[in-house]
Formats: sequence, structure tokens, C-alpha cells
Amino acid sequence: MNRDFVFHNPTKIYFGRHSMLHLEDELQKYGPNVLLAYGGGSIKTNGIYDEVIKALNNTNKNIVEFSGIMPNPTLAKMKEGMELVRTNKIDLILAVGGGSVIDLAKGVSVSTYARGDAFERYWLKREEVDNEVVPVGAILTMTGTGSEMNGGSVITDEKRMIKVGRVFTSFAFPKFAILNPTYTYTVSHYQMCSGIFDAFSHMMEQYFSDFDNPVTDYVLESLMRALIDASDIAIKDHEDYEARSNIMWISTLALNTITGLGKTQDWEVHAIEHQISAFTNCAHGMGLAAISPAYYRYILPFGLPKFKRFAINVFNIDPRGKTDEDVAREGIDALDKYIIDHDMPNSLRKLGVERTLLSKIADSVSLGGGYKKLTREDVYAILFNAYENE
Amino acid sequence: MNRDFVFHNPTKIYFGRHSMLHLEDELQKYGPNVLLAYGGGSIKTNGIYDEVIKALNNTNKNIVEFSGIMPNPTLAKMKEGMELVRTNKIDLILAVGGGSVIDLAKGVSVSTYARGDAFERYWLKREEVDNEVVPVGAILTMTGTGSEMNGGSVITDEKRMIKVGRVFTSFAFPKFAILNPTYTYTVSHYQMCSGIFDAFSHMMEQYFSDFDNPVTDYVLESLMRALIDASDIAIKDHEDYEARSNIMWISTLALNTITGLGKTQDWEVHAIEHQISAFTNCAHGMGLAAISPAYYRYILPFGLPKFKRFAINVFNIDPRGKTDEDVAREGIDALDKYIIDHDMPNSLRKLGVERTLLSKIADSVSLGGGYKKLTREDVYAILFNAYENE
Repeated sequence: MNRDFVFHNPTKIYFGRHSMLHLEDELQKYGPNVLLAYGGGSIKTNGIYDEVIKALNNTNKNIVEFSGIMPNPTLAKMKEGMELVRTNKIDLILAVGGGSVIDLAKGVSVSTYARGDAFERYWLKREEVDNEVVPVGAILTMTGTGSEMNGGSVITDEKRMIKVGRVFTSFAFPKFAILNPTYTYTVSHYQMCSGIFDAFSHMMEQYFSDFDNPVTDYVLESLMRALIDASDIAIKDHEDYEARSNIMWISTLALNTITGLGKTQDWEVHAIEHQISAFTNCAHGMGLAAISPAYYRYILPFGLPKFKRFAINVFNIDPRGKTDEDVAREGIDALDKYIIDHDMPNSLRKLGVERTLLSKIADSVSLGGGYKKLTREDVYAILFNAYENE
Repeated sequence: MNRDFVFHNPTKIYFGRHSMLHLEDELQKYGPNVLLAYGGGSIKTNGIYDEVIKALNNTNKNIVEFSGIMPNPTLAKMKEGMELVRTNKIDLILAVGGGSVIDLAKGVSVSTYARGDAFERYWLKREEVDNEVVPVGAILTMTGTGSEMNGGSVITDEKRMIKVGRVFTSFAFPKFAILNPTYTYTVSHYQMCSGIFDAFSHMMEQYFSDFDNPVTDYVLESLMRALIDASDIAIKDHEDYEARSNIMWISTLALNTITGLGKTQDWEVHAIEHQISAFTNCAHGMGLAAISPAYYRYILPFGLPKFKRFAINVFNIDPRGKTDEDVAREGIDALDKYIIDHDMPNSLRKLGVERTLLSKIADSVSLGGGYKKLTREDVYAILFNAYENE
């Protein structure tokens, strides 16, 4: 913990099979007008919608529906939500869904009463929020993004083809989040795997950095191991409660800021993936999976000791009789195999990206990175390797 | 995560060399009357007192001093604080010190405006707090208890010779805590070691339980390993910033409730130690060290798989060619050696407890425990073994 930090995470978590029982208590803390934000309507078929409506009715709320929030939520959709909040004097935005719904709810929350163009000011110019913020509550139905317990909000400007993430501080975190692992049972196999890899990637982004921290790194290793254990079970049995609940809680911890304290972070896989999905609208976790083996093999020589440690402590690679580089490479090979074994694409080709897009994507990626500060040429080389990876 | 849980930890942490720079911002959130709570006055010799007074003066506070808070803080001292808060219409209790000072500050915070006898109602009968609570801020000068980021408050009724811990929920947590590792440099070697073992013990109390949880258990193992690494360095070099800062943050995480989620816990070592220190006024961590080897050897047969896992994952015991029980016992032997190597007593005899006291202590311990529900005879046997341990 050689770097100073501020940690503040006031989100109240209700976790477990009976967590929805707390919703009415929470609702009573807010005024009468609730914006009910959700996605494509799957919550209407699995019963969650009815449970939420019942709690809202029992607490005499005026319900304003805000549905159809899409994966990779758009700026246009955010503006639609802002208009609803303003017109209906909304006291609470209740986000029911996965990361897209919660990210958009936070976006609406901080933007509605902004002076000027909120997307321009808060996402592109990264200005501090200086206006009233509408409280957000979350009911999670899909795991992976960690949005339920942080200030992240990724919004896609569909006109300019850019996907921009902003991480707000604790004033913008959901006030409460209800995490019921059984709500994630009806998520498709594809989306479950995508969410698992999203969480895995969040931990790698924080783990591989040029300024390490023993405490945080040990914790990250333990959570990655726990995620491997749990996902090995969940991929065979979607309704294994223990496995799904572990995945849910690990995903939340993986990006609730505690796992990034006191160290630098990387986030270049996310930067590259954001542009892949801006061009292809792929599932976020699948984009991360497709890029990760190539990216980590590319930067491995610049952070060899940490990649060796990763191989041993996360994937149980036996280091005896091997060079450091061999051990490190076996770790990334194990990651590659993990991706394949969990029904995800380990290459851009398998993800379905057109080879002709690689150059355009490389042009649009924000350059950054941890062990290796990437140039446009590096990004293109990584995309090319990620396309060809077997 | 098979058990439902609620998690809410709103304490804002300022961590690092420059963390005191945030104090004035925090002070500005509260009214003018501040109770400055501290211990025996060491903060006056190491400069911390002056820094705090400067921040209080810069923010125009009326300062009411409340000094002389002792280790194992007493009910009489708590009543003294309550009177000061009432008389001076205190808006913020600023606790500068270690766990004793912060525990007492929280005690005063919840008790001042209680109807009836607060100690009776909140500590002995464990009733819910139903009165106004005075905000607490903490500036940590000694690590171990974790009191800076939780709702724990251990108070000793010196007349009845009982030390009673109560864990309040988030309303009673410090609103903010300033953690500057350099403030812990002037703590004596003895107190540093005591604090380290207090944190270690908190993790073992949560780890060894009859209802496990893979996520939390992995995290606990990682933090115990990190604590061993850091304390091995700190014992040789008190002013190794990295080691002391890791110890500080691990101690906070070790009891900020995140490391106990979704599982049962034990806490019987603490229950026994509370009575040892009620009779002897020993340093808390030293009491825990003196009792731990004997306690864990006693309950080991009832939780063998977990003790085996502890040996391998925390103390790197090689299991090859050994029985499970051998591996498990080697883990506790390693703990015993860790205690000795870190200049702590591994027996009650070395702690200086009179043998004639064992029976009285056994009579007064609250019976509980995880793998083995203890009887009075069990407690006496553990105390006897803990006395004789070599």
C-alpha cells in the first residue's frame, strides 16, 4: 500500500435468495415518483417484474416505465431517460437488469440536471459533476459488470461510434443493490459466460500493472481462483446456487474499487474491446475474451515476474524446471484454454469480426496500457494476433 | 455464498502519507463542537496532536478535550465521555488513537442519548439502538482492532470484571477514518506485535467455522498470507513503509465485515481472551496469541479439512506423504512458531497469568465456538493447555 488512496463505497448490498424482501424498506426512504428502468422485457417472463411492481404498489409509488434499454446503451436512450426524470419529477431510478441498465440509470442520474451537454462534459471532458443527482437503486439480473456497486457508466454515442466509460465517485453509486443469484438462472448460457469473463477481465486489468501492491494483488488472485472454481461448476449446471452466488458476489467485488486500491491499473483490454463493440455491437465479455490471449501474450515480456506469479497463483502452473518466460506463457495458455472451455471465442475471427475492420478499430482505440504503453501499431498487431489466434 | 447477507460499510477511508490533508474537508461537514478523544498523551509527543489541533482551529471548532482513554476502556470512562457530549452539545467525536479510543468513542456516540442504562441495554441485552447517535471520525495511530471501519465497541465494566463486545450496524461506523501508516511508527514493538496478532486472530475467527464460504475463505487466506509477508518485514524494520502500510490496511480489511460474509464465524478465542484481559489487563493481541495454539489444537479434530486447507494455503505446508491430521497439526505448529518468531507469548504462563486464575477465568467465559461447542470443562482444558504450552 505504497500509494495513497481514498476508499468510499456506501452501496448497501442485500444478497441472497430472500434479498428482495428488503426492497419495500428501501423504497420507503424515497419520494413517490419512481422511474422503473429495464431492458428488453425478460423480467416480465421470469416473474421479477411482478415482484418489483408489487413492492412499488405496496409503498404507494407512482411508476414511470422506462424500458427497452439495450446492451451497450446509447446516448439517445440516456436522453430519453433524462426527459422522463425531468417531466415526472423522479425521486428514485430503480434499475432492474444487468450492467447496461444500471450504467444507463447512473448516466441519467448524473445528467438530468446538468448544465450544458452532460455527455460532453462528464464523459468526454471528464469534468466533475456539479449538479443534483437522482438516487439510483439496483436489482441485478445479470452478473459481470460490477455496476451494482460502483460509479461506472459506459455510454455509447451511436452517431459518432464511440463507447465511453466514466467512473464517478461514491455520490453516483447505487444507494442499494439487491443481488439474488436465482435471478441470474434465466440468463442465456452465452450471456452467463460473457458475464463471467467480464469479471475475470476486470481483475486482470487491475492485477497487471507497473506499480504493484501485495495486499490487493493477493486478494485479486484469491478472487480469480474462486471465480475459476465457481465457473467450472456453473458451466455444467446453470442452477447450482452455490456456484452462481459465488460468481455473483465475486463479480461485484471484482469492480467495487476495493480490488484496485494502492496500485496502478491497466484497462487496455477494455479500451480495445470498447471499440470492437462500438463497431460490431458484440457482447462485452465475449469481446474481452477474444482480445485477451493476444493482448497478454503481447505485453508479457514487459511484465514477466507478474505473469509468472499469475501462472502459479491463479492457474496452478508448476514452475519447477522451467524458465520464467515458459511459466508465464503457460499461464496465458491456461487462460486461453479457460476461454475455450467456457464456450467463449479466443479470437476475433471466432467472435465474427470482419478482418477488414481491424484497421478501423486500431485507428479508434484510446492508447494507454500498463506494462507497455501502446502505439497505434501495437494495437493493430494485437488485433491481428487476436484475429488469427487458434 | 449460500447464506443471505446484508453488507453496508459507508466509512470513508483516507489512506496514506498525506491522508491528514483531508481532515479539514471532513470537519467542515459537522457543527462547531468537537470532542477530541485520545489516550495517554503519546499523540502530544509525536506531533499528531498538533496537526489535529491545527485542522480544528482552521475550521473554527470549539474543542472539548477527552483524554486518558485507557487500553480495555472502562464503563466509567464511557460515562465521563457521555457527560462531556451532553454538556457541550458535541457535534462530532474525533477519536485519535487505536482501537481502545475508537471503541470508546463509538460507545459514547450511541449511549449519550439512550433512554435508560445504555450499557445494560446495548451491550448486555443487545437491544437495537433507538436514539440519536453522535457522529464519530477516527484518526488511527495503532493498528489491529479494525475499529476504524466497523461498528464494534468493546467496553469493560471494571466493577463486575466483564469485558463485553457489541457490534453495531453501519449507523455507528466512523463516518471517516484517516489511516497514515507513519503514525504507527512510534508504537512500541510490543504493541505493534500485539496489533498484528489481533488482526491475524480476527481472520482465523472468521475462517474456522462450521459453515464455509469459498469466496470469503479464499480472501481470508490471501490476507493472512499478505499479513505474514508484511509482518516478517516489519518485525525487523519498524519503519518499512510498505510493510507497515500493508499491515495497516490488512488489519482494517480483516474486520470491516467483508471478510465474514456468507458464513458462520467462531470468535471463541476472543471470548476467552476477553476474560483473560478482564482479570489481568493484558494487551489484547498478546492474550489472543497466548490462547490460540492451545485452542486450535483442541478443536482441530472437529474441523480437520479446514485446518488442512489452512496449513497448505496460509503456511505453505507441503502435504505430500502425510496424513490429513499431520498436515493440519503442522499448520498450527507453524502458527505457534509464527507467534514465537514475532516476539509474542505462545502460552498463558509466558503471558504472566497466574495458574490459580485459570479456574476463575474458565467460570466467566461465555460459552460458544464453531467446530466444537465448548463446555466449561473444555474451556478449562484449553486454558490449562494454553498455560503449559511450550
